[in-house]
Amino acid sequence: MLPVASTPVPARSAVPTARIEAFLAEERRETPFLVVDCDVVLDRYAELRAAVPSAAIFYAVKANPAPELLDALVHAGSSFDVASPGEIDLALAAGADPAKLSYGNTIKKRTDIARAHELGVRMFAFDAADELAKLTAEAPGSTVFCRVLCDGAGSDWPLSRKFGCDVDQAVELCLRAIDAGHQVGVCFHVGSQQKQPDAYRVAIELVAEQIAAPLAAAGGRLSHLNVGGGFPGTYLTTGPATAVYGAVIERTVVRCFGDDPPVLITEPGRFLAADAGVIETEVVLVARKSLHDEHRWVFLDIGLFGGLAECLGEAIKYPIVTVEGDDGGPKGPVVLAGPTCDSADVLYEEFRYRLPMSLGAGDRLRLLATGAYTTTYAAVAFNGFPPLRTYHLPPSRRA
Amino acid sequence: MLPVASTPVPARSAVPTARIEAFLAEERRETPFLVVDCDVVLDRYAELRAAVPSAAIFYAVKANPAPELLDALVHAGSSFDVASPGEIDLALAAGADPAKLSYGNTIKKRTDIARAHELGVRMFAFDAADELAKLTAEAPGSTVFCRVLCDGAGSDWPLSRKFGCDVDQAVELCLRAIDAGHQVGVCFHVGSQQKQPDAYRVAIELVAEQIAAPLAAAGGRLSHLNVGGGFPGTYLTTGPATAVYGAVIERTVVRCFGDDPPVLITEPGRFLAADAGVIETEVVLVARKSLHDEHRWVFLDIGLFGGLAECLGEAIKYPIVTVEGDDGGPKGPVVLAGPTCDSADVLYEEFRYRLPMSLGAGDRLRLLATGAYTTTYAAVAFNGFPPLRTYHLPPSRRA
Repeated sequence: MLPVASTPVPARSAVPTARIEAFLAEERRETPFLVVDCDVVLDRYAELRAAVPSAAIFYAVKANPAPELLDALVHAGSSFDVASPGEIDLALAAGADPAKLSYGNTIKKRTDIARAHELGVRMFAFDAADELAKLTAEAPGSTVFCRVLCDGAGSDWPLSRKFGCDVDQAVELCLRAIDAGHQVGVCFHVGSQQKQPDAYRVAIELVAEQIAAPLAAAGGRLSHLNVGGGFPGTYLTTGPATAVYGAVIERTVVRCFGDDPPVLITEPGRFLAADAGVIETEVVLVARKSLHDEHRWVFLDIGLFGGLAECLGEAIKYPIVTVEGDDGGPKGPVVLAGPTCDSADVLYEEFRYRLPMSLGAGDRLRLLATGAYTTTYAAVAFNGFPPLRTYHLPPSRRA
Repeated sequence: MLPVASTPVPARSAVPTARIEAFLAEERRETPFLVVDCDVVLDRYAELRAAVPSAAIFYAVKANPAPELLDALVHAGSSFDVASPGEIDLALAAGADPAKLSYGNTIKKRTDIARAHELGVRMFAFDAADELAKLTAEAPGSTVFCRVLCDGAGSDWPLSRKFGCDVDQAVELCLRAIDAGHQVGVCFHVGSQQKQPDAYRVAIELVAEQIAAPLAAAGGRLSHLNVGGGFPGTYLTTGPATAVYGAVIERTVVRCFGDDPPVLITEPGRFLAADAGVIETEVVLVARKSLHDEHRWVFLDIGLFGGLAECLGEAIKYPIVTVEGDDGGPKGPVVLAGPTCDSADVLYEEFRYRLPMSLGAGDRLRLLATGAYTTTYAAVAFNGFPPLRTYHLPPSRRA
């Protein structure tokens, strides 16, 4: 079982772990399915704790909200970033302290804010005057994080302008929030799968110079700084060691804020969950489009609508290994596609994975580092296919 | 309640129908939700029957597999195109005759073919030698449709090369299928939301000249011709009258095949279901990104992952009407986006809808012609949001 992609699987990849290998060896389960080893999540949590010791970790529940995974992180002492009433309920059900939840979605219904506040949530994000007004009305006295725009350079999934406002508006909104009785923080997101640690330096400096300083000059204080997520998973390409990210963040905060830094927060999702998961899938068909076609189309029983939405635009390239169908002979380029009748359901066409020429229908592949942004993206029943089946192996130890 | 988009809603739009209006007036239901009037589906069915009287209609279940809708079409005499074991079960549960099902997905597991055959399904699509081999083994004696590539020019959602093979391969595969004891047909898809009826002429001529003729020369016969779907829904832009499509198809078949035409099939999905549905959604936030931003971002409680996946790339532009928040004053351009933390969850940014300047959080909008490709595309729980709530109004009459 060797990696078949042209780029080698990076050294950090811990999957399939021995526990996942054992699980996969138990029986031949119906595909497609995802298996997640919560030990890996705890390993990554410890790695990030060590790299950024000043920061509290708020796990972004949206990356993978499985109860076993949330339970493991609650016991490890994690805080949680939640995006909706549903995620608040999941975190609380796993035993999280509501005071350790941050309602990080800048787009919230008034009734959902009130409900969160009622449940004890005291941290909220916003990026617009109307949202701040809702927070002041429904969550008085809470800590509110103004999200500022970052450009996302260096990331595999640069964020659009959907979230955040510019620094001038941020200063005005923060002053208004302080007047309304809130503690204020700033949050940003440097882009998902960010491979350049320097992106955090640029963003922290922006906050210090163009928000915290004018705020202080006006008599306000930035009490919290949430540097967001973006730390990479171990896909075909990944970033430098986590310690490098940590050093950049810690050094920049000290340099910018000296002895009186704001409370520091990180918000990893992908980084904690991605490497913990393996998807096993079956080849449904190997086809050629013409009698002399040099490329094979390999159709899997999982696609864009079955959990691999992040293949959209080929943004994320999962390491792929063959389990069956490799006779040791030559490999060749393939287009990889999903099983639905949607013509958009193509996983990789620009980037050509290389798979054994002997691969055929019924053979199985594994997609590594698929623990994040797979389970909940799956469509309810597109083309009549059920959502992704999942297995989460609870931690073998307590953190 | 007036259309607010710059392009007028086309005359054919029958939604919201009086029945939908009455349903919406009953109570203020929690948003987002979709309501579908099955009478409209039956109207469109009758319209297509009249336009292409020679063709049997196979409704593409994937467009909207709601039991009420399938039930209405079963009673109208429709046949069904199914994409998976799940869709076969839905069609049979609605009372469809298995002999009137076509398993139109060219990517099928061997076990799924065997199960379909066992249940009485006798029509199957394929586009590759390996798939034909599975069909011969598991569904002997069935009618098999070889899917050929079309270029999709003139459609809003041109299909990729995912489905279909070239004509030379099609001829070879058809001959092989006949040798193996199958009846053979050809199917194609001219692209979804196809606005140029002439696309059907081009494709039918291709089949007649480059597949049926060589097949006949080799002693084979094309027994079926499935011209697919692609007939447009009534979005901001649509195509000519259905009768125009019908005339092109009927005329071309007569001209190409004379007195001995193949059995003719159409496979509408969007055309039957789209116009029947209305989504009601609530504005969660109206935001500006800077103090002097001229554009407003209007965030809805439904987005790409909640059922509006076809907004991807802004391919499909739904007519949008305001229900509340319009004081009769000026309108201005907006970016429309969904409620999740995913930065890709933006509905329309290139195309600028114009909405009232007075619109605010809590106000409701309606998205028209949303009966197709919305319910099943919704993610199971992305960001903790539940899938789209749906209501289907059963037909008020039997066809």
